[in-house]
Amino acid sequence: MTTLTRDRAALHQALVARAVRLCNAAGVMDFNGHVSVRDPGEPTTFWINSRAASRSTLTERDIVPFDITTATRIGDVAEPPSEYHIHREIYLVRPDVGAIVHSHPEYVNVLSINGEALRPASSIGSFLPEAGAPTFDSPVLINTQPRGKALAAALGAAPAVVLRQHGTVTVGRTVPEAVVHMICAEENARLQYRALQNGVPKYLVGEELANLARENWTNAYEKYWHYYDETARRNGTYAGLGE
Amino acid sequence: MTTLTRDRAALHQALVARAVRLCNAAGVMDFNGHVSVRDPGEPTTFWINSRAASRSTLTERDIVPFDITTATRIGDVAEPPSEYHIHREIYLVRPDVGAIVHSHPEYVNVLSINGEALRPASSIGSFLPEAGAPTFDSPVLINTQPRGKALAAALGAAPAVVLRQHGTVTVGRTVPEAVVHMICAEENARLQYRALQNGVPKYLVGEELANLARENWTNAYEKYWHYYDETARRNGTYAGLGE
Amino acid sequence: MTTLTRDRAALHQALVARAVRLCNAAGVMDFNGHVSVRDPGEPTTFWINSRAASRSTLTERDIVPFDITTATRIGDVAEPPSEYHIHREIYLVRPDVGAIVHSHPEYVNVLSINGEALRPASSIGSFLPEAGAPTFDSPVLINTQPRGKALAAALGAAPAVVLRQHGTVTVGRTVPEAVVHMICAEENARLQYRALQNGVPKYLVGEELANLARENWTNAYEKYWHYYDETARRNGTYAGLGE
Amino acid sequence: MTTLTRDRAALHQALVARAVRLCNAAGVMDFNGHVSVRDPGEPTTFWINSRAASRSTLTERDIVPFDITTATRIGDVAEPPSEYHIHREIYLVRPDVGAIVHSHPEYVNVLSINGEALRPASSIGSFLPEAGAPTFDSPVLINTQPRGKALAAALGAAPAVVLRQHGTVTVGRTVPEAVVHMICAEENARLQYRALQNGVPKYLVGEELANLARENWTNAYEKYWHYYDETARRNGTYAGLGE
Repeated sequence: MTTLTRDRAALHQALVARAVRLCNAAGVMDFNGHVSVRDPGEPTTFWINSRAASRSTLTERDIVPFDITTATRIGDVAEPPSEYHIHREIYLVRPDVGAIVHSHPEYVNVLSINGEALRPASSIGSFLPEAGAPTFDSPVLINTQPRGKALAAALGAAPAVVLRQHGTVTVGRTVPEAVVHMICAEENARLQYRALQNGVPKYLVGEELANLARENWTNAYEKYWHYYDETARRNGTYAGLGE
Repeated sequence: MTTLTRDRAALHQALVARAVRLCNAAGVMDFNGHVSVRDPGEPTTFWINSRAASRSTLTERDIVPFDITTATRIGDVAEPPSEYHIHREIYLVRPDVGAIVHSHPEYVNVLSINGEALRPASSIGSFLPEAGAPTFDSPVLINTQPRGKALAAALGAAPAVVLRQHGTVTVGRTVPEAVVHMICAEENARLQYRALQNGVPKYLVGEELANLARENWTNAYEKYWHYYDETARRNGTYAGLGE
Repeated sequence: MTTLTRDRAALHQALVARAVRLCNAAGVMDFNGHVSVRDPGEPTTFWINSRAASRSTLTERDIVPFDITTATRIGDVAEPPSEYHIHREIYLVRPDVGAIVHSHPEYVNVLSINGEALRPASSIGSFLPEAGAPTFDSPVLINTQPRGKALAAALGAAPAVVLRQHGTVTVGRTVPEAVVHMICAEENARLQYRALQNGVPKYLVGEELANLARENWTNAYEKYWHYYDETARRNGTYAGLGE
Repeated sequence: MTTLTRDRAALHQALVARAVRLCNAAGVMDFNGHVSVRDPGEPTTFWINSRAASRSTLTERDIVPFDITTATRIGDVAEPPSEYHIHREIYLVRPDVGAIVHSHPEYVNVLSINGEALRPASSIGSFLPEAGAPTFDSPVLINTQPRGKALAAALGAAPAVVLRQHGTVTVGRTVPEAVVHMICAEENARLQYRALQNGVPKYLVGEELANLARENWTNAYEKYWHYYDETARRNGTYAGLGE
């Protein structure tokens, strides 16, 4: 590795480690789940947290590089998650995607047990498609290439896909985008779920939704990420990270 | 600025910074939302938290003065929220209002997704109008003057207005009043929401409500504020503030 | 005051201060609410937290003596709660009662908004009457003697009475008993409320309930209190108390 | 006791103390509940937390040995829980079981109040039987041998049994297995409960469930335990333990 590469490695490791800890603190990731970032300088490489490291205490050393072309980890590093196929297959078909989060947030999961699509119910969910996030109609682990390909196909061009009775995958151009999509998908799901209990929710549609999608998300990702990042730092969430 | 003005500035900045942190700790404000206070000595000026600063860690320096007459920030300070129109238009038509809170508390939001008015369901909500808080029937950002005027019109003489599928605005003579209105509106909404799930809630009405509104709110604002303020201080919520 | 009395005063103040902090930490008391203990050595005196002191940070000095006979505080101490009538009237008609808690726990409150009686739904609520805790059918503040008398009459011989759309009062022979009754009443209410959402709960009745009431509460009060007390101490809940 | 035995005792005490604290921090054990581990070297002995010690602050010294054959504690140690019969009778008929947890998690309890079986609703619950966990149809304390035998019979070969309107018992080959079963049973119950509120949940059945049970639980127990253990350590949950 050249010095430049080593610096970039350190940067990606620091960012992914913080993102995993942040997701854990924000209540959208527990004993399972992963965050990856694609290396802009080497777009066939992504960095992801290892299978075994605890999502509450992992460090930069637990973030491992993965080669999309050969489908193997790079170098003598810890084992990646068995569900690395999620990341590999999405990066292959979505060149716009620079980061991916997979986890099992509660309310998105519940909606899927009821067969309810995750639909924009409040302005916080106005980044979602009007018809709802697409669903991958199986609870199976995404631990084979065919499953990964089917999941990436289900995602299509959307920012999020729901894995029935299992979890969620969100994507973004950057780590803050993918993480904020996960947090806001879950927050929208909670509001939607609660409204479903008291009748028929008024979903956001048409011009009203299009307007929110246009107006509400300008500069929002960095601002939301900043909030969670600051909160995590204040609460000691990053203890043990170099930052 | 004269020394007197500078002292007043410091006072307003300290109060608003604390109020934002307190709202964050009390669960009614997250990555978005703002608190403002009108300067009693210069009633065409209000102080508000900046657009970008994290609501969990902002400090006095993030509270910026705003000129109601010219609709611009005063001096070389950080950018105010794009929704400053909420504050400006309400201060223009409500001379009794000395402080405003805008945020996105969960249960008020859910009621609005169901088209349920926020109505007094328990003594904690007895400051609300019998027919329920008025609703601004749009989820749009209040980032233009016409939207601000329409929102102020929807608020009318009430202590709170619900922004459909978006959030809430509460007002008061003082910062403690506006903040306590927000906290108690959300608490009432949660009780109301839960009761709606198990049948038809008994709402407070007529003489019973009038009596609670009269008896329960004497000296209540300072006492409730004191509780949240003390709790915040004990929990380290104010770390980094001069106080 | 004799030395003996002074020592007893210190004991009561320490116990009530801890009980208020514990109730606050256990989620059953916030900006309002009070705990009192009757002085066994002077049964016409009780000790209660003052009206204004924050329930999260009050100290022994905020616990004031009250004379049941004259209905006034004893000495130059802080103002007691305006609802002292709850305590006075219950102590007058229930010689078995040595401690009283009044607060506004969420789920008991919700049940009362729906007109649902608080009934034993799980073993944790088996101290409650089979027909449910009695209800005081008004949301009014108990700030007059007639209201206090009516509330005491509603309580009757029960361990708890629900104040419609307002709160709850629990009693016990000791502070641990009254506090544990409040915590377990709220826990039972939460289970009952949740079960009501999914159909008709199976309530505990007849021989089954009688057996639980007999078997489950032997030595339970001290053990439950010990758990909450230990947890509070570990979590720093008692910071600032002499203990 | 030989040195070897003493070392083993220390090992079991440390493990059970940590498991109780971990269950408490993970929200599945409060003032009641117990964890036991069978001594592999002396399979008629198990170690269990004492009746009285607080589940939030107990230490290794509060973990006591119990003789299955004589049904008495071993040596001059603190009193075991009156429900030791749960542990004794299960160990007698389930030689595969090396650890047992009994507690009163909220959502499993609620399902039992509604007479709903605890069924696999999401991949987290795919270790449960397709027809649901068996139920012990009584809320009574398991404080006699006949009750213990009846409970063990109700459990049968399952990993978990629901005690109607009372609590849950989970078992495993190791402490991590029994603890993870308890945490995941409660998590599945919460998802199932929430889905029941919005219609008919799609339960996992047949080939889909069998596949999840086969694929999802390989190496899962140690990984999940590691997460909760790391989180507990970071959060100070183990303060006062030697570890």
